[in-house]
Amino acid sequence: MNREEIEKKLLKEGSRVVPIRWEDRRLSLLDQRLLPSSETWTTYDDPDKVAHAITSMVVRGAPAIGITAAFGMVLAAFGLKGQPIETFKVNWLVLAKRMLEARPTAVNLRWAVHRLQAIVTSGNYRDVSRLARRLEQEALAIWYEDIMANITMGKHGQALLPAGAGILTHCNAGALATGGYGTALGVLRAAVSAGKGIRIFADETRPWLQGSRLTAWELLQDGIPVTIVIDSAAGYLMRKGDIEAVIVGADRIAANGDVANKIGTYGVAELARANGIPFYVAAPTSTIDLDTPSGETIPVEERAPGEVTSFAGHPVAASGAAALNPVFDITPNDLVTAIITEKGIIRPPYRESLYAILT
Amino acid sequence: MNREEIEKKLLKEGSRVVPIRWEDRRLSLLDQRLLPSSETWTTYDDPDKVAHAITSMVVRGAPAIGITAAFGMVLAAFGLKGQPIETFKVNWLVLAKRMLEARPTAVNLRWAVHRLQAIVTSGNYRDVSRLARRLEQEALAIWYEDIMANITMGKHGQALLPAGAGILTHCNAGALATGGYGTALGVLRAAVSAGKGIRIFADETRPWLQGSRLTAWELLQDGIPVTIVIDSAAGYLMRKGDIEAVIVGADRIAANGDVANKIGTYGVAELARANGIPFYVAAPTSTIDLDTPSGETIPVEERAPGEVTSFAGHPVAASGAAALNPVFDITPNDLVTAIITEKGIIRPPYRESLYAILT
Repeated sequence: MNREEIEKKLLKEGSRVVPIRWEDRRLSLLDQRLLPSSETWTTYDDPDKVAHAITSMVVRGAPAIGITAAFGMVLAAFGLKGQPIETFKVNWLVLAKRMLEARPTAVNLRWAVHRLQAIVTSGNYRDVSRLARRLEQEALAIWYEDIMANITMGKHGQALLPAGAGILTHCNAGALATGGYGTALGVLRAAVSAGKGIRIFADETRPWLQGSRLTAWELLQDGIPVTIVIDSAAGYLMRKGDIEAVIVGADRIAANGDVANKIGTYGVAELARANGIPFYVAAPTSTIDLDTPSGETIPVEERAPGEVTSFAGHPVAASGAAALNPVFDITPNDLVTAIITEKGIIRPPYRESLYAILT
Repeated sequence: MNREEIEKKLLKEGSRVVPIRWEDRRLSLLDQRLLPSSETWTTYDDPDKVAHAITSMVVRGAPAIGITAAFGMVLAAFGLKGQPIETFKVNWLVLAKRMLEARPTAVNLRWAVHRLQAIVTSGNYRDVSRLARRLEQEALAIWYEDIMANITMGKHGQALLPAGAGILTHCNAGALATGGYGTALGVLRAAVSAGKGIRIFADETRPWLQGSRLTAWELLQDGIPVTIVIDSAAGYLMRKGDIEAVIVGADRIAANGDVANKIGTYGVAELARANGIPFYVAAPTSTIDLDTPSGETIPVEERAPGEVTSFAGHPVAASGAAALNPVFDITPNDLVTAIITEKGIIRPPYRESLYAILT
């Protein structure tokens, strides 16, 4: 499938936003730090700059980071293509190592780079130009597979949502967080397409406001209404009876079903359980990491305290106050009602069901 | 007790911040909308402007609102003092009715105005000037009693906190929310004075940022270190073992022990239970309302959506997105480990224990 076909497919599904462009062997990213006030695209031809774009959150969201990293390593390959194959491999692997360090929590970054790395180290290519073109094909495949997985998990997942239900989502697990269409928001798009008449509530998602800046923006781009609430209003809405399901994405799912996702996800899951509301995680199987036995071994990234004590560059907190800024948390598997993947709906016990679906 | 003695007492307890001034029969309020970047005092001589100051959150926090409303009604009395006593009463009661509508959730406002109203309607005063002076004494008594209650509940409450414990608080239940010293923060001040070596974590408390703007500011004024976290990091900290107790204030406590407090309090309480952490509410008995049978009958104020979709006056959310802005929630009594009052520590069953302490 090529880009035109993918975009046609997305439009047919009612999804207009795609955060990544690959044109003339250059990568362009929609700068998500500047949304919704400005739609600015930046073009990259250097893998280290792509890694920096990931670290600095020009692009975010586990699947989108994976796709971006893959294209970053394609740029690396074309940049090194004048070198002999063995030199090429050594240098490419050095750049890959730096790319892998761009962000620690999401597994898709590692998964995508390793997928390209397997081709580089396979020994199947003696011609550097051919190898670079092969890596380009692989990155495009990762991208297109992600979009198709999202559309498929949308169809699976929407069946779980009652007609007319109020649905709460946290952070942005949408088109902007993926190759397109989205994971959790893909399921919501599919429910809207199916005429379910759902009412979508989006946590604003401090400190980065992925909910009010990104989720609201991309849903409104597709004409889907959304109501923003502050993160700490989730419990109030649940007790009031306004929420009938919670659906979020994931940055990594451990072999036992523990879910690493945006900070605050664990709290929403605990509140959902206390209020008898199902808690769904939508993620492609590329987010499931059988090498991670449980959530306890997933590194949780801490970012600069200034993201908490300031806002859009302006200090808001009392001067001299310390701040902690963990940006992910771990939701234990017993709070997860089901995991929605492109291969179907996975239910507990997760250690068995995740293993079965991946092998 | 007069103002100098109160301020000396507060300083002795290590508390420097007092958000209210009453001088030359005029009320001055520290504008809490502008903290921490500016310490601006505004002076009022008109009860309707005081009501507006309460509505627009120049002053906030249940006990501080009560004290402010009382002084507002003293201003009303002095403003009406040229009138015959019966005309005075009618006009004063009209102004009192408007004052009572300034904010709906906190019961202290009603409690304080009713305390003055009882004097006005008692028939004990035929001389309007004498009545006005009597109301002034009553407002000062409400203020000083509040400070003394806070100091006393600090001594009771700090005994509940283990040495070296990490304590989480939500919103601002401090000097700024009261006549001085604070309820939840009063307990923390007392624990610090007692040399407990506690570590204080403050939820930033969106949308108004009472935590990062006010709690952090007033604790730092007293030289007490504090670490700010986003509201949705509370669960992460609890699971990590960083939190050994939660302590918050209250806007109203129903006869069954249900607690109305800043939006997000319920979520923190649910997370505390899930993690086996005690959840304490510190409030003067003026916050307990035996006329409210349960939390279900407490009105929850909804404020403008713009407080959610913008930040410090700057729009941040996607244009066209709706928002909901409930500013309180109800924590059910079964999540409340104990209520700390100036009359001692109240424990379940609350219907019996609250009734016993108030009657």
